[in-house]
Amino acid sequence: MSGRGLFITLEGGEGVGKSTALAHVASRLGDAGVPLVTTREPGGSALAEDIREVLLAVREEPVDDLAELLLMFAARAQHLARRIRPALEAGQWVLCDRFTDATYAYQSGGRELPARWVQQLETLVQGELRPDCTLLLDAPVTLGIERARGRGDLDRFEREQVAFFERVRATYLRLARESSGRYRVIDAGQPLSAVRAQLDVICSELLACENGDRQ
Amino acid sequence: MSGRGLFITLEGGEGVGKSTALAHVASRLGDAGVPLVTTREPGGSALAEDIREVLLAVREEPVDDLAELLLMFAARAQHLARRIRPALEAGQWVLCDRFTDATYAYQSGGRELPARWVQQLETLVQGELRPDCTLLLDAPVTLGIERARGRGDLDRFEREQVAFFERVRATYLRLARESSGRYRVIDAGQPLSAVRAQLDVICSELLACENGDRQ
Repeated sequence: MSGRGLFITLEGGEGVGKSTALAHVASRLGDAGVPLVTTREPGGSALAEDIREVLLAVREEPVDDLAELLLMFAARAQHLARRIRPALEAGQWVLCDRFTDATYAYQSGGRELPARWVQQLETLVQGELRPDCTLLLDAPVTLGIERARGRGDLDRFEREQVAFFERVRATYLRLARESSGRYRVIDAGQPLSAVRAQLDVICSELLACENGDRQ
Repeated sequence: MSGRGLFITLEGGEGVGKSTALAHVASRLGDAGVPLVTTREPGGSALAEDIREVLLAVREEPVDDLAELLLMFAARAQHLARRIRPALEAGQWVLCDRFTDATYAYQSGGRELPARWVQQLETLVQGELRPDCTLLLDAPVTLGIERARGRGDLDRFEREQVAFFERVRATYLRLARESSGRYRVIDAGQPLSAVRAQLDVICSELLACENGDRQ
């Protein structure tokens, strides 16, 4: 395999089954012999994981929305520099659990910060780099929250209210409509076998693209 | 006292005696009955102090310069929201050990990041807010480093090389020339008594301004 690897991101609200989906996609691509790095945001490097802890900690002091936004992009800058860009440049594929679309969904959609702030930081931190393909796991908010709460201790984001997650979901769906070329929307409310079947189709498409049909 | 309090920042490289100067200025202003908040950057709130720890930690993983810049402004956004703006709006004076000029000096001067990146983030995070007065403690780099190293364990910044601190100093001196109305440069290479005398003159000027002569 020559040239830059594919950059694939996995997005979705709380409890939509991202971890299960990520493991499934990683396994399919691995079986096909793709050199793959799986990672996550916020995080993905030692420093970025330290920033993740600062971001997710449940704390007494209210967190300023702009401080939160800047922490997300600080972690992203480090992750890009230390992990994502080197892997892509070495021809590896990168499969990342959340990326900048999550910042649009959570910090602009959920927190209602101006989208142009996110755009400005996206340009500063990423330059021209955007994901090649984004898999959005979509499910009704109440279903996702129920699943997430079943997992136990909730982080600072998971403690938000339903209205927050409705804005997150609406933003993701809008992004998927606006960037339909790069997005694949998966109905995560279906049984797991059906979700897997959808993911398998997408993996096949990605592998076919990489084997010469990539436009 | 009515209206917004004065926002005073204290700047300078390593080992120039900022802590001693801050204590002296705080004491003079306190004696004059000024309602004063003393604080520092990065830091100044619980979350911002967590970010400070992430920033100053000596770590194996190289820290991306842009990640460092974004962490500085994340801490600043939180500090402004939780501490600086509420104090100024309540009519208190704020005396802050380092602020955005330090970001110009260290991240743009020292690390050689484009100054326009700092400007862009300054506008995003601060809007129109700028310090009313900035005291720059200036001393030859070698003198400052010698003093700082005498204090023991060095943080990630204090471990930088002489050339880095020369760029930091040169940037501070350029900012002082460009913003001469707000800057007061103090020769920190003088004996402590002379530094104190210079600080006393500045405190008197600030108090006189506040008592009606402020332009």
